[in-house]
Amino acid sequence: MIKKISISLVISFICSLASAQQNVSFRQANIVSPVVNEAGTVTFSLRAPLAQTVTVHGDWEANGGLGQMSKDSAGIWRYTTGKLPSDLYMYAFSVDSVRMVDPSNAFSYRDVGNLFSLLIISHGNGDYYSVNDVIHGNVTRMWYPSAQYKTDRRLTVYTPAGYDKSKNKYPVLYLLHGSGGDEEAWVTLGRVPSILDNLIAQGKIEPMIVVMPNGNPKQAAPGETSENFNYRPVMTQYMPNFADGSYEISFNEIVNYIDSRFRTRPEKSQRALAGLSMGGFHSLLISANHPDLFDYVGLFSPGTPSSRALDPTRSAYQNLDEKFARQKKNGYKLYWIGIGKTDFLYEGMQAHRKRLDKLQFPYTYVESERGHIWSNWRSYLLQFTPLLFKK
Amino acid sequence: MIKKISISLVISFICSLASAQQNVSFRQANIVSPVVNEAGTVTFSLRAPLAQTVTVHGDWEANGGLGQMSKDSAGIWRYTTGKLPSDLYMYAFSVDSVRMVDPSNAFSYRDVGNLFSLLIISHGNGDYYSVNDVIHGNVTRMWYPSAQYKTDRRLTVYTPAGYDKSKNKYPVLYLLHGSGGDEEAWVTLGRVPSILDNLIAQGKIEPMIVVMPNGNPKQAAPGETSENFNYRPVMTQYMPNFADGSYEISFNEIVNYIDSRFRTRPEKSQRALAGLSMGGFHSLLISANHPDLFDYVGLFSPGTPSSRALDPTRSAYQNLDEKFARQKKNGYKLYWIGIGKTDFLYEGMQAHRKRLDKLQFPYTYVESERGHIWSNWRSYLLQFTPLLFKK
Repeated sequence: MIKKISISLVISFICSLASAQQNVSFRQANIVSPVVNEAGTVTFSLRAPLAQTVTVHGDWEANGGLGQMSKDSAGIWRYTTGKLPSDLYMYAFSVDSVRMVDPSNAFSYRDVGNLFSLLIISHGNGDYYSVNDVIHGNVTRMWYPSAQYKTDRRLTVYTPAGYDKSKNKYPVLYLLHGSGGDEEAWVTLGRVPSILDNLIAQGKIEPMIVVMPNGNPKQAAPGETSENFNYRPVMTQYMPNFADGSYEISFNEIVNYIDSRFRTRPEKSQRALAGLSMGGFHSLLISANHPDLFDYVGLFSPGTPSSRALDPTRSAYQNLDEKFARQKKNGYKLYWIGIGKTDFLYEGMQAHRKRLDKLQFPYTYVESERGHIWSNWRSYLLQFTPLLFKK
Repeated sequence: MIKKISISLVISFICSLASAQQNVSFRQANIVSPVVNEAGTVTFSLRAPLAQTVTVHGDWEANGGLGQMSKDSAGIWRYTTGKLPSDLYMYAFSVDSVRMVDPSNAFSYRDVGNLFSLLIISHGNGDYYSVNDVIHGNVTRMWYPSAQYKTDRRLTVYTPAGYDKSKNKYPVLYLLHGSGGDEEAWVTLGRVPSILDNLIAQGKIEPMIVVMPNGNPKQAAPGETSENFNYRPVMTQYMPNFADGSYEISFNEIVNYIDSRFRTRPEKSQRALAGLSMGGFHSLLISANHPDLFDYVGLFSPGTPSSRALDPTRSAYQNLDEKFARQKKNGYKLYWIGIGKTDFLYEGMQAHRKRLDKLQFPYTYVESERGHIWSNWRSYLLQFTPLLFKK
């Protein structure tokens, strides 16, 4: 029989459980960092009483994303930014030249080879990057058999709320990561589940499946191959098979797999392809080499044939003008290009636009502020997806 | 037309791309950390030329999981452990009393409120925690409608390789996390996808679905609720609705949802339930309150009614001896208990065993070395799953 036990006993049990738990400590107890202030500024705090210099560096524009922190008498370093626009921001501390994430912040993601702490500023784009009280889609980490690479390869797939229960068929957006990224990038820093959930809930986009493959030949996200923890993430151009065009040529094997595995509408008018940076380059080449697959193409800060040295012996890169001409003749509903004014790929894009203009190849061109950063790529996704799959 | 471009141009392009990439730097270039040495020891390295004291602390037993690092003339701190058994290990550095993950190690997971860096030592249990060249199952982060909590709640579901292609029905293991954990814990530190993939590939277990719900009433993993990044993970006992028994009483809503959504074998003989710590306590109570649901029960370092103060007004906690008697009469195939000799819940478990013995309630009891740690819980999963769903 259960004995009635007093509240004080319950509390003492709870305390003993907490202190006895092994391998678990709490985040720095009295520090809350970051704090988004009412003025839209952000205050970072770190307890480091013995440090000589502490800086915070992030991807906001105010103060160049850099702040020299100041120490109080209790050994706590603080810095407050200027007012920041609504967005998701990445940051890290440098403590006497040692880089570290914020130990008071539970939220960090990897970008290529570094961890970053994260924060969201609301009342704008940041609201779309947040989990809100709406119905949510599911995210599956799965594998498809690649005939091209003779191995099973990873795919991350978002299915919208209601997919499981309905018998409907859905359009599909294929969304590609950049150099150094992987099939996790658009889910973590790209905030795809939140963006799609929120835009669908607001009726701004069609419910759609989003497929996020891995654009590094033979690779998968760190820890998802037999290299395990020995894998050290690098930029894609340091990987074997980079830029041999095999991914672009064989991309239809991913489309075929998705059409066989999910309730898709397997038609050109119900497929979109977009990517950032290297993934934009891939989208450009995949759509040119497979002109029957996609009615919607999005190039987000893309590499272009003008900005990138292509191996002319590879079929994916041959006869590009002819391929663009055929793509135009085949027809498509949207060819959307977005790039930031300070992007290091900006000049290459202008050269590529001249090439497209000469071919009278229609496209929508959007120029944003700033450069080659996630802030732009998430924003482009917010602009691009409402244009898809219109009747 | 594509111009042939010399190798040197290609290389200069690659270098300019790497240096121009914003928001991305590489891990400390000349440092490889950790290094698993041939002798089975591990060497940790950190560049921190200005630091006064650097320690590494982890969950290995040798040296008490603590090492004072030594600085060389280049400002690189190093420490080498004793020989460690094959396992997955968690560690972090303390640099002049500031806690941080290893900036040279790409692999880190959160446990309750802290990040840890990870490493695997092979040639033993560690091989089961590694991704090997076998066929892989899929992992889905999904949501189910909870009538009990009047909200959609998160579930993480592993489906074994072949599930998508076959029309077979599969048995299901429900696997519950501990206090402070969530629906991610068994996937990240618990290594469920690797353990299941590897044991299935070796023919040691039946292919099965593994369902990992969230045992914190109304909660989800950090960043998966509308609290977003304001959420600060805490031990479950600091959450509302802790220990009101509602989760245990309403657990059948999860089972019903899974049976409706997946190709399960919806029978007691094809269902198992296990959990660690608080999840072991939940498994004990859920199976006692739902004696028709599970033929296999696993309690890994569980809290017990003997170690935990229960609110006697809650139906889940009432008449437990009668419930155990009915559970015994109903029959089950395995009731497996594992606990470490130095676990802080060890004495409570011995009191609970006396209670079960008095009721002549059959169970399998396994005592391991060490205490309340992930090393034991992964090892228990390796021992428990091969016993499930035998004809």
